[in-house]
Parts: sequence; structure tokens; C-alpha cells
Amino acid sequence: MGQQGLSALLLSTEAEIRYYSGFHTPFWQSPTRPWFLVIPRQGKPIAVIPGIGAACMGITWVEDIRTWPAPQPDDDGVSLLADTLNEVAGPAGAVGTPMGHETHVRMPAADFDRLRTQVGEGRFEDATGIVRAQRMVKSEAEIKKIAHICALASDTFEAFPRFVQMGDTERSAFAKMRIELLKGGADEVPYLVGSSGPGGFSDVIKQPTNRILGAGDMMMLDTGAVFDGYFCDFDRNYAFGHATDEMCRAYDTVFAATEAGIATAAPGATAADLFHAMADVMAASGASEGDVGRLGHGLGMQLTEWPSHTAHDKTVLEPGMVITIEPGMSYGDGFTMLHEENIVIRESGAELLTRRAPDAIPVIRR
Amino acid sequence: MGQQGLSALLLSTEAEIRYYSGFHTPFWQSPTRPWFLVIPRQGKPIAVIPGIGAACMGITWVEDIRTWPAPQPDDDGVSLLADTLNEVAGPAGAVGTPMGHETHVRMPAADFDRLRTQVGEGRFEDATGIVRAQRMVKSEAEIKKIAHICALASDTFEAFPRFVQMGDTERSAFAKMRIELLKGGADEVPYLVGSSGPGGFSDVIKQPTNRILGAGDMMMLDTGAVFDGYFCDFDRNYAFGHATDEMCRAYDTVFAATEAGIATAAPGATAADLFHAMADVMAASGASEGDVGRLGHGLGMQLTEWPSHTAHDKTVLEPGMVITIEPGMSYGDGFTMLHEENIVIRESGAELLTRRAPDAIPVIRR
Repeated sequence: MGQQGLSALLLSTEAEIRYYSGFHTPFWQSPTRPWFLVIPRQGKPIAVIPGIGAACMGITWVEDIRTWPAPQPDDDGVSLLADTLNEVAGPAGAVGTPMGHETHVRMPAADFDRLRTQVGEGRFEDATGIVRAQRMVKSEAEIKKIAHICALASDTFEAFPRFVQMGDTERSAFAKMRIELLKGGADEVPYLVGSSGPGGFSDVIKQPTNRILGAGDMMMLDTGAVFDGYFCDFDRNYAFGHATDEMCRAYDTVFAATEAGIATAAPGATAADLFHAMADVMAASGASEGDVGRLGHGLGMQLTEWPSHTAHDKTVLEPGMVITIEPGMSYGDGFTMLHEENIVIRESGAELLTRRAPDAIPVIRR
Repeated sequence: MGQQGLSALLLSTEAEIRYYSGFHTPFWQSPTRPWFLVIPRQGKPIAVIPGIGAACMGITWVEDIRTWPAPQPDDDGVSLLADTLNEVAGPAGAVGTPMGHETHVRMPAADFDRLRTQVGEGRFEDATGIVRAQRMVKSEAEIKKIAHICALASDTFEAFPRFVQMGDTERSAFAKMRIELLKGGADEVPYLVGSSGPGGFSDVIKQPTNRILGAGDMMMLDTGAVFDGYFCDFDRNYAFGHATDEMCRAYDTVFAATEAGIATAAPGATAADLFHAMADVMAASGASEGDVGRLGHGLGMQLTEWPSHTAHDKTVLEPGMVITIEPGMSYGDGFTMLHEENIVIRESGAELLTRRAPDAIPVIRR
């Protein structure tokens, strides 16, 4: 904040506020009320929040908790927040708030405009860089939580052929997967997508349907399960009855691309280096790039965080960064093959947090 | 749109885009990519989205799907969106987007500023009212989905004393509740909060802890489970071993307040009428208002929607509105008692979607 000349930092989203305060609640599901954390250049954070959250914020390290009786549409915290910012930053100090890539301001846009007018339009600056730099490098405590959920989801994926079979629908297979993750100790499973289809599938982000799984199908499940507020994010693929040669070739190519990504992941390499390492393997097999737009990303309090493994992301990897290695390619009749592993960057290179996917596509035969 | 003089509507959040397009994916968990739907004053919606979503959007009724290879931080859809808005609204037509209470713009704030500059600052107007009016009144198809998940969660709450007992932790009780909801047919359980404590508790929004449940405790669980993209949102209270007189008195008062709320809920009544009906019952018992800030709200694609049952919300109830009746009060040593039911407004008054809570606090004796 000193380097950027900021007198205060304003945070408004779940991950930002939890990261700096420890405030942990699923209450963010409700879009009704805005929540704010103000970080002075020196001193402890100040919470400016709806009264309903005072008890929950009271168990964090934040001591200065200012509340208003939300919802109060005419002035839903805006004046209280403006007063707090003026108090903390003085009448002219710059206020940083994340306004850049992968961020949003979680309050009504009209209220944010009003806040900027009230505090002084020119005083607001983009502070994405500060938050991004801190959040990208995880502490050992954070890594431990991610490792825990990755191990648990690895167990569940390995057990998948024992609890899902032909005759299950996509919907029942997804429900079973969620139940097994919870039984294993996941706190919640906010993300579970996937697809199935004869010979493969194209859509990798859709909700499960009532489609019945049968011989010749391929299925992919991609899960973001959570332990203590930290995500895993990886997928596994399964063939039903038998695997076609085309499926096997695509699986092998993407498996090899994953190996190349893991081998490249070390301090000093860039996100773009990871992209090229994986893309080169797939290109050598004549694969065409899919529509995913990147071959992996950061991971932590959110399912996806900075950086992005694209040709243009020059973020330099550092020890402590937790990222996914996620090559995907198109094959056959518009099908998509996607693999994913989660790793932490160590001085010596990549340390796997997920248990490596099988080196040949698993076939569920019953 | 015609009445407000809008040439185009711009939508950017999950619920807004799903409501008008049918686009249904958990992929919104990833904050990386923005998604847009543009609705012309006449004609079908146009999707302006990352390439990864093209297949999933392709199964909706939207035909005009424009994609870019996100993530692309330098121009993450802003130019494509600006071009689309100019094409749809013409060079001077007004563009509405929800900027009011309970909304936010889901894209980087700097990009939204850039979009407004590029398209023309003065052309953007708040369109919260349009979206609010349509989404508040549910179709029979929507009501059926909400009724389904309400019935399923009612079953699960009734079974709760059979699968949770003294010796469970908050965490294990929550996990069991989630598992039973999924076994019953819920697609997911994005929201589950609650609390426990000797004689009661104060915090009604926190994550479960490793605290062990024992005799003399009271526990509350509040769940937002989902079926086919629609939420239930209600809670139940349980005493362990025995219920204290103080607990019973508070339970009875809030139960009576719920009855008053349900009796008042009919076409023509306002959200404020509901507030007063419930608040009067609690005030007559000498109860002090809690910190929740309202006594219920709308419900549907989101855990909470407009209106809010507060003294200042004059929204007039109409047939088809689905709302919660959610009185809460403080009692004893800073404890909170919260009840909640979900109803749909019919011509004749309230129709319960949840099965009514027991009229005395249930006691789990083992």
C-alpha cells in the first residue's frame, strides 16, 4: 500500500474479506446485503457490515466492527462506509479497491458510483495487484488445507467405479459423488460439473441431466470440493463398457501434456511457459486447441484464482503458489478431453497435491 | 423496456442470465470470466460469452451466441460487448442494467467503467425495476420446483432427530444433513448455516465448528437446498436432552409470530404489513428485535430475493410471489430464536410450501 501510495484498501467480496479477516460464512449466498472491510495503511482492519454479521465477525481478529441495520435500500451502508474511508484515509488519501481482472465490486453499481462521488471520484485506484500478489502465494497452513481436500477427492475419484455403474443417470452419478465427498470429510461441494456421451462429449461445464450412462459412453467429472474454506479443483475421466481407440489416444495425449506441465512447473518459470509446454505436446499429436481458453490456473479460497496458463500470462511462478495443470484438447467429432491435477510450487519444482490420474482411461465394466 | 425507454438490457449475473436464457451451470463459481446477455427491446436475447460456454449456451433458446477466447485480461469481452450494445441499441439508445438494491455488476469495475465510456456514459440506466418485477412473480413451473425442494427439505428436517444425536459435532451434524438432502434428491446444498450452544446461541450465520452437541444445547439449522436451480430457504430448531423454559417461551413466541405472518400474507398486503404482523406478536411478548434486519424475503433462483419484510418495504404482494416468513427475536443472554417457512401467495392467501414446524421445540433425547 505504501509503494502504491494508498491510505486505505476497500474489500467487498467473500474471498477478499475472508482472506484478510477470517470472516467465514455461507451467508454470501444471499445477494441482499453488501459487506465491507477497510484496511488502513497501518493498523488492523475495520469491518463495515450488516448487523446480522456482527457476532460472526466478532470471533475473528477484527476488533473495530461497525454495523448498520441492513437491508436499508436508501443508504445500505454507503454513508457509514464513506465516513470510515474518510476517517482512515483522511480527506485526500487514495483508496485502493480491486477493480481489475478476476475481480468485481460486490455492491450495487449505483451505490459504488455514489460512494465514489461522496468520497471523491479521483481518490479510487485499482488495487488488484496488491491482493493478487498476496493471495497467489499460499502459506503452509493454506497449502495443508488444499492438500487435505485434494487427497480426499483423490480417494473419492478412485472409488468412483465402485459406486457408479451403467444404468446410473448423470444426475444420480453426480449425487453419489457429492455424498461420497461429504462422507469422506469435505465440508461442501460447491462445484461439480461434467458430461457424458457416446464416444465423448463437447460441453464441459453443464449441469447433470437425466441421461442414462451406458456402454460406449465416456464421462468426465470435475469437482471443486471444499475443506475449511479451501478448494481442490480437478477432474477424472471414465469410459463405460469399453474405451474406443479414439478416446484412448486423446487420453494418452492429454496425460502426456499434463506430465509436461508438471515437469515445467518450477520457480522462475512463467504461466506462459506452462501453457507452451502443454500445448506443444498436444500440437505434436495434431490436436486442435479447445475452447477452454487456458491450460490451468491458480487455486485456493476460490475455485479459480490468478494466474492463467495462457500464452500471454507472464506471471513468474514462486514457491508456495498452488496451481492447476489442466490441458484440454478437441478430438473426434467435436469431443473435448480434459485432464487436471493440482500442484504446489516448491523450491525443487512441482509437488503433486492430487494423486496422479491413472495412465490409461479407467473403464467401468458393470 | 418500452415504458422506461430502453433499447437494450444488459445482464451479467448468474440468476439474471439464467432467468432470461436458461443457461444453467455451476461454472459461475469461477470468478475468472465475465458473462453477458443482451436483450433487445424486440427479438431474442444475444449471448456475449467466453468460448468455454458456447456448447452449454447452445442448448438454450438463445441462437445468437458471440464468443471470445477468455481469459484475455487486456480486453475480456468489453469490445465485443460494446459492439453488440451499439448494434442492438443503435448509436444513441439507452441501455438498462441492474444497478440497484440486491444487484451487482459481475465484471471488473474498471471494465464496467471502460464499457460505459466506450458506449457512452449517459446511455446507461438502472434497470433493477424491470428485472425485479418479473422475477418476483413466479410461474407455476417455478413454483413446482420450489415446492419440490421445500417438501424434500421438510422430510429431511423431520428425520433429523433420527440421524443426529448427542456426541455429534456441529460439523458432523451438518455433513449428515447435507448427505440426507442429497440422498432425498436435492441437486446441491449451497447454503447450510446454523449454530448451537448451551441454552441457545447468538450467531445465526456461521460455519459449523467441531463443538460437540450435548444435553442442554439448542441447535438451529438453516438450509438453502436446490432442485433444478431453485432454492428452498428455511430453518428448524432442536433441543438436546431437554428444553429450558426460556427456550420454550421464545420458541412459542416466534411460532405465534410465524402464524401471524402467514395469516397476513395475501394479495394486496405489503411486505411492511408482514413485518408489522410478526413484530407486533413478538413485541407483545416483550421480545426485543434481533440483528437480522428483516423478517423474511423473496425466494427463487437465489436464496434471497426481493422484497424484504421491513417496516419500509411497501412492495404489494401478488399471486405467484414466493416468500419466506422469518421472524426472529433476541431472548435470554443474547440468544437468538429464528423460525422460517416458505409460502406462495395465492388469490386466497398463503399456501405453505414447507411443512409447518412442530408447535413445540423438538427434543433429541439420545
